Amino acid sequence: MLSPETVKVKSLGECLIPSPVGLSTVFGDGVVNYVPDDAQMPVTVENTSEIADQGGAYFEKAGPREKIYFDPANTSAAIVTCGGLCPGLNNVIRSLVLELHHHYKVKNILGVRYGYRGLDPNMGFEPIDLTPEFVEDIHKDGGTVLGSSRGPVDLDNAVGFLRDKGVNVLFCIGGDGTQRGAQALSEKARSLGYPISVIGIPKTIDNDIKYVNQTFGYYTAIDQARDVIDCAHNEARSAIGGIAVVKLMGRDAGFIAAGATVASQDVNMTLVPEQGFKLDGPGGLFELLEKRIIERDHAVVVVAEGAGRNLLPKGEETLDASGNVLFDDIGVFLAGKIKSHFKDRDVSVTVKYIDPSYTIRSVAANCEDALLCDQMARNAAHAGMAGRTEMLIGFRYDVFIHVPIPLVTSRKKCMSPESDLWRSVLSTTGQPIRIGAATQ
Amino acid sequence: MLSPETVKVKSLGECLIPSPVGLSTVFGDGVVNYVPDDAQMPVTVENTSEIADQGGAYFEKAGPREKIYFDPANTSAAIVTCGGLCPGLNNVIRSLVLELHHHYKVKNILGVRYGYRGLDPNMGFEPIDLTPEFVEDIHKDGGTVLGSSRGPVDLDNAVGFLRDKGVNVLFCIGGDGTQRGAQALSEKARSLGYPISVIGIPKTIDNDIKYVNQTFGYYTAIDQARDVIDCAHNEARSAIGGIAVVKLMGRDAGFIAAGATVASQDVNMTLVPEQGFKLDGPGGLFELLEKRIIERDHAVVVVAEGAGRNLLPKGEETLDASGNVLFDDIGVFLAGKIKSHFKDRDVSVTVKYIDPSYTIRSVAANCEDALLCDQMARNAAHAGMAGRTEMLIGFRYDVFIHVPIPLVTSRKKCMSPESDLWRSVLSTTGQPIRIGAATQ
Amino acid sequence: MLSPETVKVKSLGECLIPSPVGLSTVFGDGVVNYVPDDAQMPVTVENTSEIADQGGAYFEKAGPREKIYFDPANTSAAIVTCGGLCPGLNNVIRSLVLELHHHYKVKNILGVRYGYRGLDPNMGFEPIDLTPEFVEDIHKDGGTVLGSSRGPVDLDNAVGFLRDKGVNVLFCIGGDGTQRGAQALSEKARSLGYPISVIGIPKTIDNDIKYVNQTFGYYTAIDQARDVIDCAHNEARSAIGGIAVVKLMGRDAGFIAAGATVASQDVNMTLVPEQGFKLDGPGGLFELLEKRIIERDHAVVVVAEGAGRNLLPKGEETLDASGNVLFDDIGVFLAGKIKSHFKDRDVSVTVKYIDPSYTIRSVAANCEDALLCDQMARNAAHAGMAGRTEMLIGFRYDVFIHVPIPLVTSRKKCMSPESDLWRSVLSTTGQPIRIGAATQ
Amino acid sequence: MLSPETVKVKSLGECLIPSPVGLSTVFGDGVVNYVPDDAQMPVTVENTSEIADQGGAYFEKAGPREKIYFDPANTSAAIVTCGGLCPGLNNVIRSLVLELHHHYKVKNILGVRYGYRGLDPNMGFEPIDLTPEFVEDIHKDGGTVLGSSRGPVDLDNAVGFLRDKGVNVLFCIGGDGTQRGAQALSEKARSLGYPISVIGIPKTIDNDIKYVNQTFGYYTAIDQARDVIDCAHNEARSAIGGIAVVKLMGRDAGFIAAGATVASQDVNMTLVPEQGFKLDGPGGLFELLEKRIIERDHAVVVVAEGAGRNLLPKGEETLDASGNVLFDDIGVFLAGKIKSHFKDRDVSVTVKYIDPSYTIRSVAANCEDALLCDQMARNAAHAGMAGRTEMLIGFRYDVFIHVPIPLVTSRKKCMSPESDLWRSVLSTTGQPIRIGAATQ
Repeated sequence: MLSPETVKVKSLGECLIPSPVGLSTVFGDGVVNYVPDDAQMPVTVENTSEIADQGGAYFEKAGPREKIYFDPANTSAAIVTCGGLCPGLNNVIRSLVLELHHHYKVKNILGVRYGYRGLDPNMGFEPIDLTPEFVEDIHKDGGTVLGSSRGPVDLDNAVGFLRDKGVNVLFCIGGDGTQRGAQALSEKARSLGYPISVIGIPKTIDNDIKYVNQTFGYYTAIDQARDVIDCAHNEARSAIGGIAVVKLMGRDAGFIAAGATVASQDVNMTLVPEQGFKLDGPGGLFELLEKRIIERDHAVVVVAEGAGRNLLPKGEETLDASGNVLFDDIGVFLAGKIKSHFKDRDVSVTVKYIDPSYTIRSVAANCEDALLCDQMARNAAHAGMAGRTEMLIGFRYDVFIHVPIPLVTSRKKCMSPESDLWRSVLSTTGQPIRIGAATQ
Repeated sequence: MLSPETVKVKSLGECLIPSPVGLSTVFGDGVVNYVPDDAQMPVTVENTSEIADQGGAYFEKAGPREKIYFDPANTSAAIVTCGGLCPGLNNVIRSLVLELHHHYKVKNILGVRYGYRGLDPNMGFEPIDLTPEFVEDIHKDGGTVLGSSRGPVDLDNAVGFLRDKGVNVLFCIGGDGTQRGAQALSEKARSLGYPISVIGIPKTIDNDIKYVNQTFGYYTAIDQARDVIDCAHNEARSAIGGIAVVKLMGRDAGFIAAGATVASQDVNMTLVPEQGFKLDGPGGLFELLEKRIIERDHAVVVVAEGAGRNLLPKGEETLDASGNVLFDDIGVFLAGKIKSHFKDRDVSVTVKYIDPSYTIRSVAANCEDALLCDQMARNAAHAGMAGRTEMLIGFRYDVFIHVPIPLVTSRKKCMSPESDLWRSVLSTTGQPIRIGAATQ
Repeated sequence: MLSPETVKVKSLGECLIPSPVGLSTVFGDGVVNYVPDDAQMPVTVENTSEIADQGGAYFEKAGPREKIYFDPANTSAAIVTCGGLCPGLNNVIRSLVLELHHHYKVKNILGVRYGYRGLDPNMGFEPIDLTPEFVEDIHKDGGTVLGSSRGPVDLDNAVGFLRDKGVNVLFCIGGDGTQRGAQALSEKARSLGYPISVIGIPKTIDNDIKYVNQTFGYYTAIDQARDVIDCAHNEARSAIGGIAVVKLMGRDAGFIAAGATVASQDVNMTLVPEQGFKLDGPGGLFELLEKRIIERDHAVVVVAEGAGRNLLPKGEETLDASGNVLFDDIGVFLAGKIKSHFKDRDVSVTVKYIDPSYTIRSVAANCEDALLCDQMARNAAHAGMAGRTEMLIGFRYDVFIHVPIPLVTSRKKCMSPESDLWRSVLSTTGQPIRIGAATQ
Repeated sequence: MLSPETVKVKSLGECLIPSPVGLSTVFGDGVVNYVPDDAQMPVTVENTSEIADQGGAYFEKAGPREKIYFDPANTSAAIVTCGGLCPGLNNVIRSLVLELHHHYKVKNILGVRYGYRGLDPNMGFEPIDLTPEFVEDIHKDGGTVLGSSRGPVDLDNAVGFLRDKGVNVLFCIGGDGTQRGAQALSEKARSLGYPISVIGIPKTIDNDIKYVNQTFGYYTAIDQARDVIDCAHNEARSAIGGIAVVKLMGRDAGFIAAGATVASQDVNMTLVPEQGFKLDGPGGLFELLEKRIIERDHAVVVVAEGAGRNLLPKGEETLDASGNVLFDDIGVFLAGKIKSHFKDRDVSVTVKYIDPSYTIRSVAANCEDALLCDQMARNAAHAGMAGRTEMLIGFRYDVFIHVPIPLVTSRKKCMSPESDLWRSVLSTTGQPIRIGAATQ
């Protein structure tokens, strides 16, 4: 349970400088307002006899402040994009630049190249000077104009870089690993006597960051996935005993698989990490498929990449150098198992396997994500200028909020098998609550 | 301000029949749950010194109930779609039919033809028998397989029709006029001793129904509008002094114009009903356009159909038979005024006017709307089977709720000029808070 | 009938300079070849007892020549886009620049602003320096980066401009008016002792230029039109007696209306300029619509903008200042007539009118047009470097050819009512060969 | 070289029955005409000193005949779709049914299930009764409503089936294997005293059937492939040393890879079966990639599935049961080789591999293919009703023709490295004529 203490966001100091953004402080005058510092949002708003109360914990509401911490004339910002591609990265970069440049009059904005590596001068990647002209049309392209990479950075080198470039506010666009890095970077900078504002913008196509109801890229992903499922459906319907297996992204959380299933309506079984399943035995996947093939002659199965880990063989050969368990590809595994199951029973089926991951990650943001990116980015700019730090922009119950980074890096968000979304999946597919009554 | 009394939803009677849906009543067992009757949601969750408290008013949460009112074996349902087209109508029809048929085992579902007219036997439109086979692929098409029309129905005839067909639950998919009709129908039926469950599903492409944060079709509309704005931008950039005027839907509320502006990022001025504007004078639209043409040689203007009513000529010829004020087309008016303004000043401009309304209304639902439609429809089925009546499915702070119809028919929702969305519009366009400092 | 004389293309002089493009002159060595100067293509290849022979007239085949006329080191090129927008303009500009720059090593390429107006120094539009960097991503946008305008230019001023800038080759992208202007410009330049190569690239979304089987933009247009017809179909099917009228481009030729009809398959009547029709009387449009509404309750009518001119009222008020006949909008006219026809007969219909012209013109090129643009442009570059002049790139029987400009400016291409395409329209719609047995 | 003899199409007998289609036989009367039997088309129309003459061989032109062979009242048709999916199958089925039903009044049309297997009664697949109602909306879906499968059928069983069902005309939609089967079936039927009309409709997404310039599905494939290449480009541009390898269809012919390259314009190297290449050594692929990475930091490589067979390891393990050489996946092979090449040289690159095959095959036809399918199908109906047999519908120089099946099954069409299309690829990519100067 969250306490008022744990949801409190750090600041670099008191906000004394009047914001140049030029909004109103009067509610009801028909003019857009600054967001007062006491504007907040309860952690949980649903109210039933069965949900425990969140004990009065409230998130700070995001938005432009009447007084800001940094003097725009003497402020430099930097933006970095980390990790795998996600639709909307360029939209976020663009709206950050435009908000900082046009509204706060911050003229010095650096684009850090290739993720955290670009913060290490030893890597030799000079940052890009980000101007309104540079970003004008970038939101129409997928990918990131800054480049991206995975992995951490030498913190001392990075702080040295930021100090050399005079960066006061750093925007870190990335997933939970990136946010852990952002937190560490901020702590190191403070410890070295160069405190900066570090603002995270959550980026995970899997939609698995806590206190962010919907991350940008997620809706684009299910949009794309719906088209792929439509293809899979066509393949399955056109073959004798056609079974199409579609693997979708979702290492720890099945949001994409679930959302795409409901949006598509053409899926017969959806398998996610949050809900175990059995292949064999009564009520198992094979039995369900057999029944479906007899009745309808075709089936579409969607499987999240992190589903069914209990089924994958784990052996010596699946340990990497550091001793981490490496998993096989559940999609390939499943398609193979289905093939051999029916072959053993001498039932003629045609199994097609589709894995659209890369093409989903690199398209441009769809309309909803474009909207979300703009709002995420501008709220991040406001938070940075107000001197907030070690926080990310959250989005909960349709409200943008400030969330302390440590709150979201301890554990990922996953889709509860008791959630409305999973109920929608069960309604749409008609699949049993537990396939094979397996336990995780 | 809402009171606990006004948000209370009517029921036909006590729910005594165990639901056949087969969910859990235990939170934490990993199985999807029935929604308890005491699950609720505060009317307002944001908490600032400046927003007045809503005094403890809570909406009932939507969802499947453990006990239902109607015995599925003896229950007949009917579905009617009214008013103008909106992306997602077929998705709603389909999910209603599938939920009622597969999960509640209601076998008798009628599709009323051509809106409320199909409820009047004198019109000669026999209802369609809605089966899973009939609805299988309809969600991939725009329009409505039931047909639609505008206008009311003779209430006595309609109740006679429902009684003759043995309809117990009527789902009315439509806007505020349709919901007023639904309320009247329910009251008339009760007064005639044939009480039925009347469940509204909000349909307005303009997104202007209260307590429904997002109506289906709205996101598809801004998706389409974004593409049109992209075309307008291309036209404007390719001509000498190119000015493209795009009229978007929004009779009383500027949500589509605002959403499309932020999603597109290529709009320079957005005009909505909620914020007046002047054409002439200092800071007026013409002055802004002149400045923009000098600096950038092109401009894109988006205008909601209900914007600028104060500017339109009103005369005898604009009164209809009933004495209602008929308005000219603001888009045509504005494009004409811009042309003549620049012609008078001998400035060479090329004005293009684009009105994409019909093609937006009749496309299939995009991915987000497909998701929303499915959830709206299934929650409506749950409400109907539980004997709720004179209510519609609302959606607020990401939670589906039950809203008494009278709460939403008294006044439409509009976009506050102090809202986050309008702030996003101002940030994106860079337009002044009030164009021409006009007052409405 | 064409004679060998009329199809002969003009040249500035003998080609003496070896091409730097580096192809082969040996057929069969597996290496791409220069096109020999004697490569040609018969004007008509179909052979039936009923088609008159074209008497041995052959078009010169387009392509890179082994010997060229201009020394790339001392050559400057210029590109101009004229008239209304058409999908693919940026693709053509880009491929011209890349071919000239990379393959011929022509480093000096000017982009003339805003059509022929940019050739007149008095208009004050400085040309753009076109480089590979400038054009890198332009093919993904609709419109034209050069800008466009309609209308002619003062020929003396234009030749002065070209001479001042040292332009040797001018690429004129536009319709028949533009090509007439190109011819006049070339003749004037020669008469002033500054002969240049003037190469036309046909641009007409209507696809109505002779000896060009398919102009770029045409397929994109029918692609877009198909989507609009789908919307119209949805509107029509969802209303009582729904009749949707879609106006498509095609001032003198019905290719877009015909192509979109066959691609869509959902059109019931297609009206084009090449085939007259009657509204009233036996077999007239109204009778056909009545029958269709009775049988199927909805109808989709596609009308090309130039169709039905005989029906439009012509009066004093439809003469412009120069005495030209101005026509009303056939779409608006037709929709109105249909409405009043059924109203007079007290038949309840719902007429929707859709005019998508601007959004069709300004989208980016679809895949087929992108292919065509690249090939058109590179063949134009080859022709220019080989010193050809007063010609345009044609495309006939799947082969790119050189066509003298005067051959295409005398008369537009139109769709024969005896053509395969019109036969496809009749098959698809099932409409009678002559609606109302009207004569034009 | 083709002789007049080899291009002559077989007929079942003399055409004596007046066609019910109702066209004109007079050229110039403004009414669509029957195609006279002597209408023909030279095999080759281009005329250069270097192309050998085709010695007077002419293909018969396709189209409706004034006199037909079969009496529609007593005629039954059947349609079968074979092999892998291809966009447009449902369009072809639909237009066949509509042409036969509405224009020829053939009321008995069978849809054979699951390819040739559906012709064998032992397989237990009852044919579908194809009506206008059944096919009404099928053209909007990918796949085939008939189902498909690979492999031959027992000819005696198949002829028995056709005789039992009274089928007179069989339309075989498929690739070269299918057409071989069609030929065999016709010969067997004749030998058994049950001669039928067997009409092939070419279906190959690879576009590799001779005398068919463009098969349906090909343009849809490059349309889809262009989007995938765009994603690949985004991936490559966003990574340090990003190299994206896209594998496209094309087992024996590189048309898809070539077409997608030119349409996309973002490809740096295109590898096809018709042009060998080396990985190592001067001018080899690795050297080209190194240069590109140094200069531009990213690269996009497109490889057709049949390219580079000389590079793939062939060993015992790559022989199948019949002794055929099985090839590894060139895409996986190439991506791996590139990775290890740069790893060996300690150059940091990020290699992404994308294989979009299944999703390309199963989408609905794009606009151009929809047009083509309609025309292919209706011409096939005309040919069948006229009693032609053992032929397929060809498409050459923009004219639909009749081609004897044996002409196209002996050898596949491939893309000449001396063709205009390959020249376009070289121009667009800037790649050398022979990568690594390899020979195949």
